[in-house]
Formats: sequence, structure tokens, C-alpha cells
Amino acid sequence: MKTKTLQELAEHVGGRLVGDPNILIREASTLDKAGCGEITFLSNPKYEPLVKKTKASAVIVQKEMECTAAQLIVEDPYYAFMQIVVLLHGHREHPKVGISPAAHIAQTAQLGPDCQVSQGVTISEHVKIGKNCYFYPGVFVGPKVQIGDDCIFYPNAVIYDGTIIGNRVIVQSNASIGQDGFGFATHKGQHHKIPQIGRVILEDDVEIGAGCAIERGTLDNTVIGKGSKIGDLVAIGHGTKIGPCCLLVPQVGIAGSAVIGHHVVMGGQVGVVGHIRVGNMVKIAAKAGVINDVPDEATVGGTPAIDVNKAKRAYALIEFLPEMRKKLKELERRLDDLSKENGQTTP
Amino acid sequence: MKTKTLQELAEHVGGRLVGDPNILIREASTLDKAGCGEITFLSNPKYEPLVKKTKASAVIVQKEMECTAAQLIVEDPYYAFMQIVVLLHGHREHPKVGISPAAHIAQTAQLGPDCQVSQGVTISEHVKIGKNCYFYPGVFVGPKVQIGDDCIFYPNAVIYDGTIIGNRVIVQSNASIGQDGFGFATHKGQHHKIPQIGRVILEDDVEIGAGCAIERGTLDNTVIGKGSKIGDLVAIGHGTKIGPCCLLVPQVGIAGSAVIGHHVVMGGQVGVVGHIRVGNMVKIAAKAGVINDVPDEATVGGTPAIDVNKAKRAYALIEFLPEMRKKLKELERRLDDLSKENGQTTP
Amino acid sequence: MKTKTLQELAEHVGGRLVGDPNILIREASTLDKAGCGEITFLSNPKYEPLVKKTKASAVIVQKEMECTAAQLIVEDPYYAFMQIVVLLHGHREHPKVGISPAAHIAQTAQLGPDCQVSQGVTISEHVKIGKNCYFYPGVFVGPKVQIGDDCIFYPNAVIYDGTIIGNRVIVQSNASIGQDGFGFATHKGQHHKIPQIGRVILEDDVEIGAGCAIERGTLDNTVIGKGSKIGDLVAIGHGTKIGPCCLLVPQVGIAGSAVIGHHVVMGGQVGVVGHIRVGNMVKIAAKAGVINDVPDEATVGGTPAIDVNKAKRAYALIEFLPEMRKKLKELERRLDDLSKENGQTTP
Repeated sequence: MKTKTLQELAEHVGGRLVGDPNILIREASTLDKAGCGEITFLSNPKYEPLVKKTKASAVIVQKEMECTAAQLIVEDPYYAFMQIVVLLHGHREHPKVGISPAAHIAQTAQLGPDCQVSQGVTISEHVKIGKNCYFYPGVFVGPKVQIGDDCIFYPNAVIYDGTIIGNRVIVQSNASIGQDGFGFATHKGQHHKIPQIGRVILEDDVEIGAGCAIERGTLDNTVIGKGSKIGDLVAIGHGTKIGPCCLLVPQVGIAGSAVIGHHVVMGGQVGVVGHIRVGNMVKIAAKAGVINDVPDEATVGGTPAIDVNKAKRAYALIEFLPEMRKKLKELERRLDDLSKENGQTTP
Repeated sequence: MKTKTLQELAEHVGGRLVGDPNILIREASTLDKAGCGEITFLSNPKYEPLVKKTKASAVIVQKEMECTAAQLIVEDPYYAFMQIVVLLHGHREHPKVGISPAAHIAQTAQLGPDCQVSQGVTISEHVKIGKNCYFYPGVFVGPKVQIGDDCIFYPNAVIYDGTIIGNRVIVQSNASIGQDGFGFATHKGQHHKIPQIGRVILEDDVEIGAGCAIERGTLDNTVIGKGSKIGDLVAIGHGTKIGPCCLLVPQVGIAGSAVIGHHVVMGGQVGVVGHIRVGNMVKIAAKAGVINDVPDEATVGGTPAIDVNKAKRAYALIEFLPEMRKKLKELERRLDDLSKENGQTTP
Repeated sequence: MKTKTLQELAEHVGGRLVGDPNILIREASTLDKAGCGEITFLSNPKYEPLVKKTKASAVIVQKEMECTAAQLIVEDPYYAFMQIVVLLHGHREHPKVGISPAAHIAQTAQLGPDCQVSQGVTISEHVKIGKNCYFYPGVFVGPKVQIGDDCIFYPNAVIYDGTIIGNRVIVQSNASIGQDGFGFATHKGQHHKIPQIGRVILEDDVEIGAGCAIERGTLDNTVIGKGSKIGDLVAIGHGTKIGPCCLLVPQVGIAGSAVIGHHVVMGGQVGVVGHIRVGNMVKIAAKAGVINDVPDEATVGGTPAIDVNKAKRAYALIEFLPEMRKKLKELERRLDDLSKENGQTTP
């Protein structure tokens, strides 16, 4: 951790200061836990009441508020907060291991400068790796994999043969990249495995969460677009294309041959069927089940997924179904009575 | 890749040719990507329009169509396609590693001929393995495990003690087979672990996807039936029996002591509660929640799962709930008015 | 397995015997599979009919029943059963490996007495481990991790830097503990990684299932409370606090900054959004989606989650939506007709 003055932080993020610029800030913390020498932030309005009470030395806010802490006013508090956490704490530092003698690196594998390969890592034949990549113990890199620069592979991540990985890609622990797609031809009740000859392509700046399973394509490639971030335990089907800058949170599942646009956000446990198109900048609410194409910029929820506001109103009424059904029967009875009086015979 | 003439492919799959039998086919590809020297196929009718446009040298179809490519006409295009992909591309070839000196094989473990064991593999005491099995790096095989012939274990797969595995079984990376079932006796608010003394049995020709978690039984065994294929990130509870030739796609979850018939197909993220029976040849739509027994040959969807056609009609109407509720109130009001006119007092 | 007389078992669990106290019991089994020399139990009333038919030598029941087997009558059959399984079968015995020369233990790591560390295990710098902990092959323990006594880490489990683990904690295979939380600041369409400086804390007697993914906190810690048991493939978001003695079954997902009380039970595939509070002793039905705070002792189901009995009644009626909608239209038509007769004009 590096200590900075509030002035230095304000300059770093280009913000306006309300309070003493010479306050020393040692670390970042939460609104409720922060104390002297610590900076915190407000981005979720739900926590606004905590700003008044915070014991932090400084708080990052969008507009000046009533509180005892010094205030650093910026347009995008969460982004400024990120910049400050990076400045004060930095990203994880990896143990220096160089090329461990207990790593298994094939003769024909090419590693760029400054790569570090831990014990128990396997780098197979004809692998090409750029510079400054880090491999934690137990990582497996299959034959003919291509990896760019500045990538990080956490323990026991598995990269199957032929996978193509760009620059600054991060793969968290126990993730599987490029295992066989779920492709079987069923004939006379038997399921026959179809060789999966496609690859997985992870473009630049992609992050893959812990325990994810990204299938290789049957013929075509499975692609995770530039800058997309995938949460933990996400399953991506064979041949699916995910555009740039998407956010898929944990336990999302997308079947095969789906096409997902750019800047798509999917909530937890969302499911998307195969062979459909989800447009650009689409937002999908947690647990939704998407079974049809979704147009650009739509926000959907529910199963089957519909416009999210419609869904909110509608799903909130499911609990009234018993009452509605009862009322229907009652109205029918009353109508029958009325009809009789009017000398009608019930149709 | 081996190059074949269209004639050779037609004979291999027993199909009828429309077009030049001497065309050379080098590889398989998709309708939209395929080019000269490539063969593609049509099985999903959704892609029929692409057949006209395909630049492939040949296309596998069920009935003759209007297109420029040569046509290979077969009863089951997807099955023929599988046969041709195997012929042209073959299945994955594994690096030749023999028995790595960096593998850890217990004194009492027995391996059949032609097994290959990579570095960092653990094969524990009293393990029995048949012939021609392949173990990728980081695989753990616990004490007293029995494995048949021609099995493949991908990197970091974990097989707990006592598991019984048949022939031609494939376990993808990071899968866990035989970990303790979720069995706790709760007494005075504390959860006491119950030793899980059952095993997992994977019968012949089973495939287990990446990151799966197949619990061992508490007393009874957990069984995955012959020829069943399990997708990625599937969780199977303790003591559950899955019949032969089932297809469970990614992220399916089945609780403990369930009994699943043969040729059952479950879509993505399906959940099945414990202690129920799902009949033979049942199909369960993606995301469905099954809480009751399902009869043979039923197709169900929704949560709780009902007949899938009923479910499709019904779930599509959830969005009309607000309108329906409004209408109900309106009709009641109108009935009240009518009743008054008729000198009735509203009941 | 140790053989005991029924008398010894009765004394061990403090139960009342109906039948010959000298019967020898060799092992525990299920009602339908148990035979001579075996003891079984009834706790799920669904299986009561099997008691009459069981061929077991003895059965553990809550009240005396009509059956040929000797009966061991106790207040809590499942708890007594657990005690007897432990007595007869014991918990898993781990291979004696001592400290393997093929393990990688950093200079500055401290291990207590009687720890066993298998080949291919990494224990990083500044790790502190108590006594009698067991590490299976491929386990990774990151820098500065603290671990108490009597913990078990199954193969390929990954514990990231700084994680704090109590006593008697069990982590099943391929689980990830402390990977980076899903935290990105989105600015001008780019997602910027926020260093995740919080930790994961697993308190005493916690068990983590196979393939789980427990994120570290952004600033605050992620906490799994004392005695809580987490099933397979569960995802826990950054900064979420789970109280003591909770049961989360497989495939549950909880987003970040949620606060879960004590003795909470969640069914399979339950999803809980971030930043909410789930009260003490709350029960959440399988597949439910919880989007709002839940009060203490509530039992909820459905998506969005509501009182579980309401939910059961309501969701069972979804299939009648088409019929209800049709009926609504019919009633409206009849009302229009009636109104006309009464010389009214439809409003």
C-alpha cells in the first residue's frame, strides 16, 4: 500500500476536492468500515444514508453531500474509486518463479521473454506464448495453443489443444477452455460423439471466472469478444459467439451456436438457448430464460424472456392467480343468475 | 485430415449422390463457412435457406434440394455428417507420453497394457485399470478405483476412492467424480457429516463434461447408465440413478435418490428434486423444475414442470396477467351496476 | 467396518430396543437393499411402506412399527443413523503420505504437527497451517493463507492468497476459494478490473462442495459462517456474508454483498441477488429467485420469491392461464349482451 495525499488522489482522478487536500490516505474501504486514513465511495444510491455516518477520512461522490468526511467529487465515482484502489493497492503481485524446473515444457513450445511458469504446469508441443505471461501451478496448456502477451492463468486452469488467446487475458482457477462441445449424433438410440474440430478464441482483455466451462466449436469456433468478462461457473456452448465488452455474471449458461452482440449484460443464472441472436447492448435480468432473438438495446426478464418492465409487473401478479381464478368463477355464477332473471338461458 | 472423393464418402455413409462423384473433399465445415473442397450438412430446418447459398463442394441433405453444391442424400444427415467428420478429421490424438516418470503410481495399482499416464497424475493404492487408458496431467485416481478399457481422463479430473468406471468412458477436465454426497444429520442446530459409503458407477460409453460434480452415494451407489452423456457443470446428487443413453446438457442439476429412466433428455439448467422417478424417453425443456414423478415418454416444461405444450401456451400468457387482473375488476364493476339496475343487492 | 451388537448400538445412540439385543450388526444400508447383519433407518415418511418389507436385521425408527426387523427406537432416527454409520464405517481414511518430497512448500510457510502434504501440492510463502491438516495432490495454497487444525483439502482445490480458514474445514475437489470477485468499473464502454483486496474467511466446521467458486471481497471479506455446509457448484459473490449453520445445496448462486442469516436453508439452483438481507432460519425452495430482503423464519419460493405456500398454490395455476383468459373474454361478451338487453351501452 502507498500513502497519498487527498490532493494527489484528486489530481490522479481529475476530481474536485471539498476538504483538506493534505489529508493522508492509506487505503480504500467501505462506507461503514472505513476509518481514519481511509477513502470510500458512493455509487449505489441505496447506501446514501451511510455517507453521513461514515468515519472515512474521505469519500468519493458525484455531487457534494452533507458529511464530515472530505469529499472528492467526480462524474463517475465508481470509476474514480477503481483508479484509486489501483493506485493505493495495485493488482495482485505474483510470486517470482521464473521457469520452474518442475514445470513440463515441450521441446517445440515457444515462450516469449519474462514468462513465469510454476511447478506442475504443462505446456505442450507447438504452443506459442508471447511475453510476460504467468502460469500458476497445475495449469495445463494443450498442443498448438497460441497465447499473446501479459496473460495470467490461475491454478489448475485447463486450456485444450488449439485454443487461441489474445493479450492481457486472465483465466481464473479450475476453468476449462476448449473441452469438447456437447455434440452427439443420435442414431438408433445410441449417441455417437462428433469430433469437435473448432477452437475457442479468447480475444484481448477477456477474463474467465473460476470453474467456467467454455466449449470448443464443432466446426466453427467459439469466440469470447475483446474485453468481455465472464463470471464464475459460466457454461458457453460450442460455436457460440460473444461480442466485445459483454458482462456475464456467475452461473450464466449459453447453449451452442448463439450469437451475442457487444456490451450485453446478463444477470446470474440466465439461460440462453442455442441458434438465436441477442442484440447489442441488451440487458438480461437474473434467472431469465431467453428462447427467441432479442433486438438491440432491449432489456428483458422472465422465462420466456419479455420486456423487463412488463415482466416485473406480470411476475409480481402470479401470486394473485388463486384469487383471480376464484373471482372468475364467482363472476360467472353471478352472470348465470342475472341471465336467468332476464329469462335468458345460459349459453 | 484425409482427402476423399465424394464417391468414397457416399459409400462410407451409404448415401445417394447428386453431382460429380469425383469431387475431392478435404474437410467438413458449416453451411455458411464451407468452401471448395469442403462438405457441409443440413439437419436443422432453420438453416435451409443457407443451402441455396452455400459455397461448399458438397452438402449432406435428407431430400434433394435446389443448390449448386453436389448433394449427398441420406436418411439421417446428422449421423452421416458425424461419420464423415470422423473419417476426414478423426478424434483427438493424444500426445504419446507412455508412463511418465513424473506420475505417481502406487505399488499396488494395476495398469493394463498400452495405458499412458502423464506427469502429475496420481494413481492410488489398489487401483485396477484396464488397457489403453489415457491420463492427462493432474488427474487424481483415488484408492480402490476400478477403470475398464479405452477410457480418457482430461487434465485435473478427480476420481474419488472406490469409483467404478466401465469401458470407453470419457471424463473432461476439472470434473469431480465421487466426492462426498451432501449428507448431514441436523441435530440441535448443528449439521453432522454422514460418512458417504456408497460409490459412483460410470457405465460403459459414458461421457462426463468439464467441471461436473457427481456425488457418491450415502449407502447406495450413484449410477450413470451405459451410453449416457453429461454436459458441463452438471451436478448429480447422491444415490441418484440415471438410466442408459440419457443426454443431460450443461448446468442440469439432479438432487439425491432420484431415478431417471433411459433415453431421457434434459435441457440446460433443468432441476430435478430428489426421491422422484423420471420415466423412460422423457424430454424436459430447458430451465424446467421437476418436482413430481414424470411418466414414460412425457415431454414437460415449466416450474413446476407440466406438459410442455400446456407450458408453452401458459407461460406465454404470464405477460397478460396485469391486463387480465384489470379486466376482472372492470367486469365485476359492470356486474355490480347491472345487478343494481335489476334491483339485486350485490352478494 | 466394525461389527457391533444391537445392544451396543442402542447404548451408543441412547435408544430403546424392540427385538433381540444380541443381533450382530455389520454395516448400514437402505431399507430396500439391507439384509442380514445390516441396519437401516426410516426418516422420510415416504418410505414407511418399505419398513414392513425390509430384510434388514434392524431398523432405526421414531415409533414402534409393524415389521419383522428388530427396531431401535429413537427421537431422531436420522441423527442416530449418522452416529451408527460413523461407528460402523467411520469417515474416509486418507492415504498416509507424510510430507511428500514432490510437494512444493515455501521456505516461509509454517506447518503444524501431523500435517500430510501430497505430491504436487503447492504451499506458498507466509502460509500458516495448524496441526493435522491433510492436502491431497494438486491442491494450491496461495501466499499468506491461514489454516487452522484438522482441515482436509481434496485434489486440485485452489485456495487464493490471504484466505483465512478455521478448524475442521473440508474443501472438496476442484473448488476455488478466494478468486477475484466479479468487480469491474465500466467507463466509456470498457470494463476496468478493480483489485479485489478483501479476503475469504471460512469459519470452523465449514464444508465446501466440489467445483464451488467463492469470490474474495472487493474491500470487505466474504464470510462463510461456522458450521455452514455448501453443496457442489455453488457460486458466492464478493463480500457476501453467510451466517452460521446454513445449508446451501448444489448450484445455488448468491451475488455480492448479500447478508444471509444463520440456519438458512437454500434448495438447488436458488438465486439470491446482491445487497439484500436474508433473515435467520429462512428456508428457500429450490430454483427460487430472491430479489428482496426476507424476514427471519420465512419460507419462500418462486421467482420473485414469495411465501412458499402462496407460491405453491399460485404456480400450480399457471397452466390454467389460457383457460382463464378465454373465460374472461366469454364473460365480457355475455356482459355486453346483457347490458344491451338492459338498454345499456357498453362503457
